[in-house]
Amino acid sequence: MKVADYLIKNLVNLGITEYFGLPGDYNFDILYSIEDNKDASWIGCTNELNAGYAADGYARVKGYGAVVTTYGVGELSAMNAIAGSFAENVPVIHIVGVPATNHIENNVLLHHNFQHPNYFAFKQAFEPIVETTAYLNKDNAKEEIDRIINVFTSTKRPVYIAIPMDIALMNIDGDILIKEVKSDESILKSFVEKASSLINNAKSPVIIGDALIKRYQCEYLYNKFAEQTRIPASNFLMGAGIIDFDKENYLGTYISVFGNDTAYKYLTETDCAISVGPIYSDLNTFGFSLPYKPDDHIAIYGEYSVINNKKYENIRMTDVLKELIKLVNVRDNHINVTDTGYKTPEISDKKLTSDYIYPRLQEFFKSNDLLFIETGIIMHGFSAMKLPKNVIANTQTLWGSIGWATPAALGGCLADKTRRTILFTGEGSHQLTATEVSNMMRRGLKPIIIVLNNSGYTIERILSNDPEDSFNNIADWNYSKLPELFQGDVWIATATTEKEFDTALKLAEHQDKMCYIEIFTEKMDLPFITAKTIERLNKQKQEALEKAVSFS
Amino acid sequence: MKVADYLIKNLVNLGITEYFGLPGDYNFDILYSIEDNKDASWIGCTNELNAGYAADGYARVKGYGAVVTTYGVGELSAMNAIAGSFAENVPVIHIVGVPATNHIENNVLLHHNFQHPNYFAFKQAFEPIVETTAYLNKDNAKEEIDRIINVFTSTKRPVYIAIPMDIALMNIDGDILIKEVKSDESILKSFVEKASSLINNAKSPVIIGDALIKRYQCEYLYNKFAEQTRIPASNFLMGAGIIDFDKENYLGTYISVFGNDTAYKYLTETDCAISVGPIYSDLNTFGFSLPYKPDDHIAIYGEYSVINNKKYENIRMTDVLKELIKLVNVRDNHINVTDTGYKTPEISDKKLTSDYIYPRLQEFFKSNDLLFIETGIIMHGFSAMKLPKNVIANTQTLWGSIGWATPAALGGCLADKTRRTILFTGEGSHQLTATEVSNMMRRGLKPIIIVLNNSGYTIERILSNDPEDSFNNIADWNYSKLPELFQGDVWIATATTEKEFDTALKLAEHQDKMCYIEIFTEKMDLPFITAKTIERLNKQKQEALEKAVSFS
Repeated sequence: MKVADYLIKNLVNLGITEYFGLPGDYNFDILYSIEDNKDASWIGCTNELNAGYAADGYARVKGYGAVVTTYGVGELSAMNAIAGSFAENVPVIHIVGVPATNHIENNVLLHHNFQHPNYFAFKQAFEPIVETTAYLNKDNAKEEIDRIINVFTSTKRPVYIAIPMDIALMNIDGDILIKEVKSDESILKSFVEKASSLINNAKSPVIIGDALIKRYQCEYLYNKFAEQTRIPASNFLMGAGIIDFDKENYLGTYISVFGNDTAYKYLTETDCAISVGPIYSDLNTFGFSLPYKPDDHIAIYGEYSVINNKKYENIRMTDVLKELIKLVNVRDNHINVTDTGYKTPEISDKKLTSDYIYPRLQEFFKSNDLLFIETGIIMHGFSAMKLPKNVIANTQTLWGSIGWATPAALGGCLADKTRRTILFTGEGSHQLTATEVSNMMRRGLKPIIIVLNNSGYTIERILSNDPEDSFNNIADWNYSKLPELFQGDVWIATATTEKEFDTALKLAEHQDKMCYIEIFTEKMDLPFITAKTIERLNKQKQEALEKAVSFS
Repeated sequence: MKVADYLIKNLVNLGITEYFGLPGDYNFDILYSIEDNKDASWIGCTNELNAGYAADGYARVKGYGAVVTTYGVGELSAMNAIAGSFAENVPVIHIVGVPATNHIENNVLLHHNFQHPNYFAFKQAFEPIVETTAYLNKDNAKEEIDRIINVFTSTKRPVYIAIPMDIALMNIDGDILIKEVKSDESILKSFVEKASSLINNAKSPVIIGDALIKRYQCEYLYNKFAEQTRIPASNFLMGAGIIDFDKENYLGTYISVFGNDTAYKYLTETDCAISVGPIYSDLNTFGFSLPYKPDDHIAIYGEYSVINNKKYENIRMTDVLKELIKLVNVRDNHINVTDTGYKTPEISDKKLTSDYIYPRLQEFFKSNDLLFIETGIIMHGFSAMKLPKNVIANTQTLWGSIGWATPAALGGCLADKTRRTILFTGEGSHQLTATEVSNMMRRGLKPIIIVLNNSGYTIERILSNDPEDSFNNIADWNYSKLPELFQGDVWIATATTEKEFDTALKLAEHQDKMCYIEIFTEKMDLPFITAKTIERLNKQKQEALEKAVSFS
């Protein structure tokens, strides 16, 4: 079997049936292997950064994703997307077609290289931002593919693989051995005994979930753990939606002092916080601090866990949760939190503001929706929402690369065609990657796209010295003309008032095609949580630093 | 003076008066220094890759360029553009705003970083693709800026500088010392004596110029050398336009066996080839081979020179040319090449094909035009043209990253507002970076943009196994709607026939606004030179490999 066929076959077995990227003369034989595999499809993108984001969005929904680029020019363009996947533990494999072995060996000058050829410079550039890299040759091809895939599946982090043109076509034999990664039994035992004893002896333990639960596919066990033990559970933003908001003992999303008082009270007053799969950032902790004390803290990560700063290596989240379910006592809590989320908004003829947008969108979202929420003020407004059952909510809260959500939504649409995909983005972010909407149209996908046009980078206007700083202005597009440029059959609406927005959403619900809705607000219109976060951040800068979460 | 002010002041002194990039909370204080400098302007772009390309296009015209990005998400997005500048020796400084020193020292978790913070990962990623990197701190700030700028001006290659937020505001004293890089006198003497003796004793020396003449700003000396010695001179594609096509003893651009027989004959039959500033690639050598024998070859690079594979280090192109002008004998050549370039086309009602497009464009280009010619078949069609006087022609022949030309043209427009800027791109390439047209509109720039719509990646159709390979199809845009999306006052035309194209060009000439012309051809319509190159490449693959240009 050809090397490229072998790689694609094994990736298809992981569930990767769509491959994002652009063709280039160095990667043709990888693309042929995708075309030749009846379960695999090629999804051409408008550029490689977008392809990387699309693969990221796909992996967040389907478990794994892949992006295929060409040597130098292609692979380097995808780098920010791959680094984002690395930061947020999203398993994306980056497959790069590179020059043929005989060209490398003869030091031949080629396009997409330097004046003094360095065939390994780009692999080297990727090393600090992926879990591992491989550069295939005739002796290591099968072994390296097997190693790369094992690292990929066990760490759930990005890997990079460079395939010379001739090696893609070389024949290899045998099957892959995907080693089941097992927890270290004795470390696991010692961790769960200590952890369960602390939890069982605590007066007011709380659980706080986050994104790594999704990455390590522990949603079921996590729900079981929270439900069975009846320990009150909350989450950071990236963990929203893992537990249904209506479940008993669920506290809703933690949004610091900016709302959801119940969650705030439980998390700050606990004598035993159990975090499961946290990805901390200054954004999801609303500053630089944890709500709970690090010394009363049990943290369960994908491949290790921590009790009060002591690390227990080589134990997997799955195994830890399974054991804790057995060992942790059932409590007698019957908490029903009724004050999470926005109140149903009253509608008027007034100009659209955040006070209407977020509550109305909360109402609009429905069970099983697949949400892609862009970085910036939108993420803040979103974080205070109550979500319907079984929603998959995607935000990029740690990496926070503006532009991510648009192509990620393309990936999401293809990862699960049974769900309604909704993209909500600011226009400043949308400009970076808006061309990818054309590939949604080309593939007949039907997301609902909502673009908030507030005349520039509003989040930066708040953070910089002066809201009028001219560097926060951007080119003024007529976004609702985008579908015309891209020649698609798209339902288009614009809204400047509450009524118009309400009507647009009502009509969008019944379209059997892509919907593209541009909505307008004043440029300094903010979700309340943004204004308050910034205020607090500025005030507490020094104080926060002292309480900083740090890793040694 | 503040660190950021000091940096910008010294870059303005090099002629960098426009700064491309996007704002981010880590780089605000660098942007303030740009705004506060009365000679500097901020040019916001739609994304960082485009900003990098724009800075590259700017530097190709003005000598130096700068791109400013934010930590992680911003800087990595620019990487492909910077690597392209490195490949083609274009001096672009990449300035990155990074976290404050106290955050780094306290290992604080921040947005745009990893779960386990690594503040230096991105600098590390840049190391293999730039000349040098610097990461400022309180002790090294001035010294490192001075070092970086000296490397920048002496090598004419990209440099990378990371500035922590607090360091940008720190005060430093003193002025920069830009050390004049001098050639090693004794090596220079030994080189020019040997070289001039070889040239003077040769029967049929030829000169072949290329891009590094521009980068090291040696156009004047190079012209003087060729004119005074009367040695016949040709050039590779990236050197086109340095010598006026009508000059005596100028042979026109070397296009291998595909035309310009005079240049081909002189270059392949010479007993002494003198290359000045060559940037070799498989594209400008039309395969992998040099026209002349490496053993009869004097090569003059920016910072070193070579005679028959022996390297003479530390001698500058300027000094070498100055000395050779004194030492090389004047010959008695009076060659007037009359058969370069396309013949004036006859016009008809026929569908537009390459046979009309390139000859008609040759006629359309005029003295002092600033041209940005995209990679792909367009570059081939362009390479056979005769150019008017004093044209600046830009192609990215070695790096060959599709999408480059559109933002590079934005940079070009701003680098020299006295010239007419013309962008000629295929639609496949244009899709990657087309959003940057919106910033040309926003700045009131008036380039003439010609987009060749041939339904996909035509160059890839030729290179892959089958022209119908579906991965070479792309989303079908209605390109002439782009100005509507971007809300600009733009003169728009489309052309499917020769007559329509002719009319469009005639009218475009008289518009005092941006012109956007979309032209259509069949998807396999090729400039003759492309078809022939591919044919030859396939035939001679093995043979070419043996003659390969190699570096040891």
